[in-house]
Amino acid sequence: MPVMSSPRDPNHPGSSPMAPEEGGQISIPEIIRKKRDGETLQQEEIRYFVQTLGSGRSQEGQIGAMLMAIRLRGMEPSETMVLTREMAASGTTLDWPAQWRGLLVDKHSTGGVGDKVSLPLAPALAACGCKVPMISGRGLGHTGGTLDKLESVPGFCVSQSPEQMKEILERVGCCIVEQSQHLVPADKVLYALRDITATVDSLPLIIGSILSKKMVEKLSALVLDVKFGSAALYHTLESAEQLARNLVSVGNQLGMKTAAVLSRMDEPVGARVGNSLEVLETLQCLEGGGPGDLRELVTTLGGLLLWQSGRASSVSTGATQIGQVLDNGAALRTFQAMLRAQGVEAEVSRLLCEGTEEQRLAVLKVAGTQEELRAPEEGMEWARGRGHYKSLSSSPTHPFALALSCGCPWAGLQAGGKIEGTPWIRIHHDAPRLSQTQRETLQKALILGDVEPFNPPAKVAKILLPNGESAVPESQ
Amino acid sequence: MPVMSSPRDPNHPGSSPMAPEEGGQISIPEIIRKKRDGETLQQEEIRYFVQTLGSGRSQEGQIGAMLMAIRLRGMEPSETMVLTREMAASGTTLDWPAQWRGLLVDKHSTGGVGDKVSLPLAPALAACGCKVPMISGRGLGHTGGTLDKLESVPGFCVSQSPEQMKEILERVGCCIVEQSQHLVPADKVLYALRDITATVDSLPLIIGSILSKKMVEKLSALVLDVKFGSAALYHTLESAEQLARNLVSVGNQLGMKTAAVLSRMDEPVGARVGNSLEVLETLQCLEGGGPGDLRELVTTLGGLLLWQSGRASSVSTGATQIGQVLDNGAALRTFQAMLRAQGVEAEVSRLLCEGTEEQRLAVLKVAGTQEELRAPEEGMEWARGRGHYKSLSSSPTHPFALALSCGCPWAGLQAGGKIEGTPWIRIHHDAPRLSQTQRETLQKALILGDVEPFNPPAKVAKILLPNGESAVPESQ
Repeated sequence: MPVMSSPRDPNHPGSSPMAPEEGGQISIPEIIRKKRDGETLQQEEIRYFVQTLGSGRSQEGQIGAMLMAIRLRGMEPSETMVLTREMAASGTTLDWPAQWRGLLVDKHSTGGVGDKVSLPLAPALAACGCKVPMISGRGLGHTGGTLDKLESVPGFCVSQSPEQMKEILERVGCCIVEQSQHLVPADKVLYALRDITATVDSLPLIIGSILSKKMVEKLSALVLDVKFGSAALYHTLESAEQLARNLVSVGNQLGMKTAAVLSRMDEPVGARVGNSLEVLETLQCLEGGGPGDLRELVTTLGGLLLWQSGRASSVSTGATQIGQVLDNGAALRTFQAMLRAQGVEAEVSRLLCEGTEEQRLAVLKVAGTQEELRAPEEGMEWARGRGHYKSLSSSPTHPFALALSCGCPWAGLQAGGKIEGTPWIRIHHDAPRLSQTQRETLQKALILGDVEPFNPPAKVAKILLPNGESAVPESQ
Repeated sequence: MPVMSSPRDPNHPGSSPMAPEEGGQISIPEIIRKKRDGETLQQEEIRYFVQTLGSGRSQEGQIGAMLMAIRLRGMEPSETMVLTREMAASGTTLDWPAQWRGLLVDKHSTGGVGDKVSLPLAPALAACGCKVPMISGRGLGHTGGTLDKLESVPGFCVSQSPEQMKEILERVGCCIVEQSQHLVPADKVLYALRDITATVDSLPLIIGSILSKKMVEKLSALVLDVKFGSAALYHTLESAEQLARNLVSVGNQLGMKTAAVLSRMDEPVGARVGNSLEVLETLQCLEGGGPGDLRELVTTLGGLLLWQSGRASSVSTGATQIGQVLDNGAALRTFQAMLRAQGVEAEVSRLLCEGTEEQRLAVLKVAGTQEELRAPEEGMEWARGRGHYKSLSSSPTHPFALALSCGCPWAGLQAGGKIEGTPWIRIHHDAPRLSQTQRETLQKALILGDVEPFNPPAKVAKILLPNGESAVPESQ
């Protein structure tokens, strides 16, 4: 029976006497309608929708409506899997030598202020024999992206063709590059729309976006760092675990051995925030030093990947191996080789990786001026890990985040030092001095606790293994 | 406390440590989020959303997401009222002389195949002393719009400025014009997106679209013809009544005396479908003839409006008055004057309004060729009203609709004649003859009943008065 495809008149709903489903044709309005009504989409419907993205066959308004329908009606695991696969298939995929099978690993983090884990993790894994084709993102808003951080190294080039990536992986073992225009174009369209349509926190959309970009890397093993806490979208372990379990399940179904780490995000990772300062902290970590929480995340995530890819007999053995390449300089040398391979001049890479902190600061584009804020008398100093760090009672709003939001002309922030009467935060900037209002706003963020100093809990709260089992991390 | 307005990273949901609602700023994503979560929007939020439409301050993807959120979460009556008012305020409104207060009336129909009621109704009301500034729409898909029908009259001009409308209302009492670019621009944006985003059947969106366009007409009284039945979106009286009750409630709150008629839509209105053929049937109605169901709708809707605007002591008295101006030629003369005022030459209007059917057919752009399909022997003929009309047992798909959907090169359809072995449908067209497949498809639509001939029920099933009371129509 023939079916009209003519448009219906929105205010004359009786004008289309035939139900659209009678014909069995695939059309964007019909796909939206099915999801709107909570029906399960067929594989070919999801494929059709994804294929129209960016092809001009769907309008932006339709994509927005579909995103909201998915956000409100959800998707079955089978739908999410198809969505992810079709998104990955929307562009080109990377191609590696057959002998790398089993060696290709990567991690993804739900991110947050100060999260610089990728920078030391990629070379540490490569130093352990893995191939790490890390495709990273830029920062949005006040969080610097991995790429922005690396670009504070003069000469570092994040734009690398698939052929160049292969060559760098062959020689160095890792690279950190930007997503080329040809990889997962469907995600680019959805990603740009999700933020402005209040559909960011849709589980199937998060999963599709994260895993489609990892699928095109043809990974053997993937680990996900899913954050929870007062500075994360998911405030509780339970809510973050729902995302983590779904990511692990779909990732494994798609052929990647996928595990997840649930890590606390009540404070920034490490003690320094800002692109250059985070590279500095990365170098400390790659020398076996740096903040304890950064090292904890690098060794745990790396240890998992070594175990997942069969290069360690257990997760803790893997973590020990990662610790060794951090301590013995192998990871730092690999980082130096990656810098060279991605365009950094020999002298610059040498000063960074072999120089003093002063030499490093001179090479990195560190802001010219520093300002300090002082703590009142009664404060406590809380020592944590290897670095000194000022913690803030239970305020959900971290001073770093507040500083970034109060319009400070910042280029970097640094916490630490003694508390009583001494600086608790240092602001690096090039622009004019902080205004009185900015200083006051920032100072308000310091909420001193009245409890005794203590060692805050480890970052990693729980590990989800590829088989769905969970483990509590061993202390390292 | 300052709040970031920087974008969040969709896959790094932890990157925005402050909840957006803390700042109390109005933003499109935050408005979408509230509706997504089923919250009631504030007046200023709805105003902000409507004001961004078409101004470029909201993206099409955001509008699509908002439409879906409204479709799935609904709106409170108070929200719908604000939405309607803000949509009406998005453009210019019409301005009338003070002495017309109380006289300005109009009707809106949820429409359907063969619905030509506006064409005889407007001049009939004007002939009773009302002012009818009717702003009509074009057809979409296979339903001809009121404007398309009128444009089959050579020279008829639907584009009239507010000044021209005022002048025509002054002289003639009614005009039927298109919506100018400056009237309700917000509706234009939403209307275009609703159909392609599966958000057509959202009650608040239907109400906002219909009533905002009537608000700018500054009406005293409005009547709504809400269809139900197998060829309408609402298959049951109950579901159509929900829309009708909401329209009546919101319309009256917005200052228009609003009533509604619930009318059956299992078959086209009248016996002819197609622009020229419907003008022909309009002229029959304006001469006191034509199909009974058409006259029933015109007298009932018109009678209500005369009563609502105080020009009749009861609805049935009003209906009688409408019947009188149809029977005594006053309505036809007003129609003729409207044709003249809207650009039709004197001779053309004379041949149409005073000529024979042959002269009318010669003036109207009636298709050159006619083809007939014949009924098998056993069929029944069902006589109804003044005209002869073939009814189809209980098939939900009317042959007219089917004919329009099977790709027939039609320009008009006409039902009637005796059934047994004689033509049951006549197709007027200019293009090549129907193909064998088209004829077979069309013939399949004829499902002959095995029940005795009967008089089908009246079109009008129920009337909702402005005070919310309902009435069963008196037989006329």
